[in-house]
Amino acid sequence: MPLATRPRAVLIDLAGVLHDGDHEIAGSRAALARLRAAGVPLRFLTNTTRSPRATIHQLLSGLGFALQLDEIQTAAQATRSFVELHGLKPHYLVHPALDAEMGASDPNPDTLVLGDAGPRFNYENLNRAFRLVMGGARFLAMARNRYFKEPDGLSLDMGAFVTGLEFSSGRKAEILGKPAAAFFETGLAELGVAASDAVLIGDDLHDDIGGAQAAGLKGILVRTGKFRPADEQDAAVRPALIADDFAAAVDRLLTLPAS
Amino acid sequence: MPLATRPRAVLIDLAGVLHDGDHEIAGSRAALARLRAAGVPLRFLTNTTRSPRATIHQLLSGLGFALQLDEIQTAAQATRSFVELHGLKPHYLVHPALDAEMGASDPNPDTLVLGDAGPRFNYENLNRAFRLVMGGARFLAMARNRYFKEPDGLSLDMGAFVTGLEFSSGRKAEILGKPAAAFFETGLAELGVAASDAVLIGDDLHDDIGGAQAAGLKGILVRTGKFRPADEQDAAVRPALIADDFAAAVDRLLTLPAS
Repeated sequence: MPLATRPRAVLIDLAGVLHDGDHEIAGSRAALARLRAAGVPLRFLTNTTRSPRATIHQLLSGLGFALQLDEIQTAAQATRSFVELHGLKPHYLVHPALDAEMGASDPNPDTLVLGDAGPRFNYENLNRAFRLVMGGARFLAMARNRYFKEPDGLSLDMGAFVTGLEFSSGRKAEILGKPAAAFFETGLAELGVAASDAVLIGDDLHDDIGGAQAAGLKGILVRTGKFRPADEQDAAVRPALIADDFAAAVDRLLTLPAS
Repeated sequence: MPLATRPRAVLIDLAGVLHDGDHEIAGSRAALARLRAAGVPLRFLTNTTRSPRATIHQLLSGLGFALQLDEIQTAAQATRSFVELHGLKPHYLVHPALDAEMGASDPNPDTLVLGDAGPRFNYENLNRAFRLVMGGARFLAMARNRYFKEPDGLSLDMGAFVTGLEFSSGRKAEILGKPAAAFFETGLAELGVAASDAVLIGDDLHDDIGGAQAAGLKGILVRTGKFRPADEQDAAVRPALIADDFAAAVDRLLTLPAS
């Protein structure tokens, strides 16, 4: 469905849209300021689970982006909230940088919580996770992303490990970050905006655009970050718009008439 | 299709059928001797890729099984033969115990060869493998097994890593061991027996029984090794026979009339 009117809220992915590592993606800082000046409510949604929210906020602020800590919604936080809400006893296989944000694993876990564990992805830890799931533990995963962009190329993301454990165990993971509809809905509920009045801007065809559109938002894919030319011809996911970058996406949104 | 006549050849899986680790599965040594005495041609097919063929032969001989080294067909050897036949330049991510059997990785690889790398399954090595496949390298895998049996429980097998890399890269692996039809056909060709005249006995519903039946053999599932009760109700794979163990399977085969 094409974009006809200006959205009442914009959800924005971070890595690959506003920045690549410690570099601003050209024009995105000024574009974010234009979007704010137009009075559009915003939320920033990230599946990055190698850094806690405060570190992500610090990085973005340091690059000159105007955003508040509580405007950032992370898959790790969504997962922790879910664990608390349901009174689960988690075994965490997550990145060391998240240990403080997530808290300690339970000595008698009833739940596996998988993040992008990075250096902790090894056979011993994955076999421990496998045995928990085979033994009936609830299987939560922060995300199912295929890959992410690093300065020297695309790198394997946690979706490989989620999918691998699902294959061997015959169990399906519950995903708490993008593309879970609940993750988009949480951000929109805080803003009091319906999904049909909102837009998401992201660089991940499956988890940003596919997830947002399945949740009823319109998705704008940018040709930055982990975008690959083949994404434009994907048979399954068709963005409402493909823009060269975040600045171009914002310019297009600001030309649309108010609804 | 049920068993009506005595097969002209029997293919036998090793781990979980004849032995569990360094223990004979009760009655299997004597049953193998009965099968040999009846003059049925045999091949032993294993997807174990944590040990070279000579070590597997040594273990089985040490347990008192009468079998020759060249009656054992391993997924690792099938993979090495394939690499040589096609003149590929391999990057090996395999178990350290296989290094001598496989040979050295090529410094400029055009092919990823994945085995059950065990302690070498870590983020750095898997990301290297991912980048090779994303860069267009041919993607070979020795097996796609879900799990294997260890003394303290079921353990994660290499299928998790094959499937994970397939998911993130969007590329499919070529499997060289079971359940690849070519792997069964190699054994049968050496014996000069057609698939329709042969039987496979194994403990892995998907890779032994499913693979054999797809290749035109009949499959007998044994209730030992990694067998799980749920296997008996599987909707996709229906063995020709389910036997309590290898001895019971052999007894049943030897009661059948010659074709």
